[in-house]
Amino acid sequence: MLIARVVGDVVSTIKDDKIVGRKLLIVREVTTENEIVGKPIVAIDTVDAGIDDVVLIAQGSSARQTSSTKDTPTDAVIFAIVDSLEIGRKVTFRKS
Amino acid sequence: MLIARVVGDVVSTIKDDKIVGRKLLIVREVTTENEIVGKPIVAIDTVDAGIDDVVLIAQGSSARQTSSTKDTPTDAVIFAIVDSLEIGRKVTFRKS
Amino acid sequence: MLIARVVGDVVSTIKDDKIVGRKLLIVREVTTENEIVGKPIVAIDTVDAGIDDVVLIAQGSSARQTSSTKDTPTDAVIFAIVDSLEIGRKVTFRKS
Amino acid sequence: MLIARVVGDVVSTIKDDKIVGRKLLIVREVTTENEIVGKPIVAIDTVDAGIDDVVLIAQGSSARQTSSTKDTPTDAVIFAIVDSLEIGRKVTFRKS
Amino acid sequence: MLIARVVGDVVSTIKDDKIVGRKLLIVREVTTENEIVGKPIVAIDTVDAGIDDVVLIAQGSSARQTSSTKDTPTDAVIFAIVDSLEIGRKVTFRKS
Repeated sequence: MLIARVVGDVVSTIKDDKIVGRKLLIVREVTTENEIVGKPIVAIDTVDAGIDDVVLIAQGSSARQTSSTKDTPTDAVIFAIVDSLEIGRKVTFRKS
Repeated sequence: MLIARVVGDVVSTIKDDKIVGRKLLIVREVTTENEIVGKPIVAIDTVDAGIDDVVLIAQGSSARQTSSTKDTPTDAVIFAIVDSLEIGRKVTFRKS
Repeated sequence: MLIARVVGDVVSTIKDDKIVGRKLLIVREVTTENEIVGKPIVAIDTVDAGIDDVVLIAQGSSARQTSSTKDTPTDAVIFAIVDSLEIGRKVTFRKS
Repeated sequence: MLIARVVGDVVSTIKDDKIVGRKLLIVREVTTENEIVGKPIVAIDTVDAGIDDVVLIAQGSSARQTSSTKDTPTDAVIFAIVDSLEIGRKVTFRKS
Repeated sequence: MLIARVVGDVVSTIKDDKIVGRKLLIVREVTTENEIVGKPIVAIDTVDAGIDDVVLIAQGSSARQTSSTKDTPTDAVIFAIVDSLEIGRKVTFRKS
């Protein structure tokens, strides 16, 4: 799974029926120090994430394994909000 | 999911039976400011998208989760037309 | 899906039983002007494509959604021969 | 599958129900000489791996084929701890 | 599918039950002239391949479509040994 930061959101009225009511957030991959390294991708939010939250993203068919993304055309899902990241024994990120 | 712009289309008469009747569009990934950054890929259109529309693309097995792509050899689908993109609190793209 | 050109083929006698009898072609991704940009990949042919044909490639699990690739260890399939490509209103490739 | 080294871990309290109780480790791809070459990714641990272990990572839907990741939004799993790697007839890595 | 050369192997005693008894080989992608271009990846061997053999690799869920990889956490499988590769009408590789 990718470590990413929520940076924005998408508004869309014309879309597949199965996506109606889902929150579409824009995320970008970050390092374990929360520095942005990835390009923007769109993910369905399932954990009520907000702007600047560091989150975990599951991609591919695994993105459809949450109750709110099952059978939808979703290839990226936010399934966890990160509290902290530790490399070796050192904390590199902590949610403020 | 990728944010992409519709740039063209494909004509094909010899093709798998399951694809007959589907609209094959050429899209390219864009930034949140609608600048092209990706190479051309072909996606099945399910939302009646047109040239220059900014759209969302689902890839992989998730591309087969719409009613018109189910059980077809489709690995990229246009499942939403983007009205607007917002990064932080700033609108970076709005459909004209 | 990728736009690719057929450039060669693979001969293999020792292979998984499910692949026996399938035609294994070597393809390379091309631009919408039919210039090669991708490295060689191997795809199962389902549309009787030949050398120099421009084709569409579906990858991943979607490559198993044709009648001749179902349940086989196939992650890339040729499922269409391209007649023409159009970018905006300009034809960039036409099959000769 | 990728060869990777365990470098850290993730703490998350708000997450999908199906992930509760799973150990989320941070891994980075390594060469066959155990030199880090990849960026951090998060994987579910199924073999009780620890920091500095060299492990094998399965990605995509294959990451859901272990008993503890079945039906979960997991796209990367640690499914083996590497004892040794051999290139040609030369051992390039041995677990200490 | 990728064209790759077998370059080594992996020994692992602590691993998922479903992988026990499978041969884990290290392969690297090659050009059609059998020059190495890819980084090492690990694949399950299903065709009794040996060091220096040029083989075909299926990735993703397609890697689980052989009788010996079904339902296992396998995302890369060796499913064919290459006898020869031909680009246009020229043989670029022949098994010695």
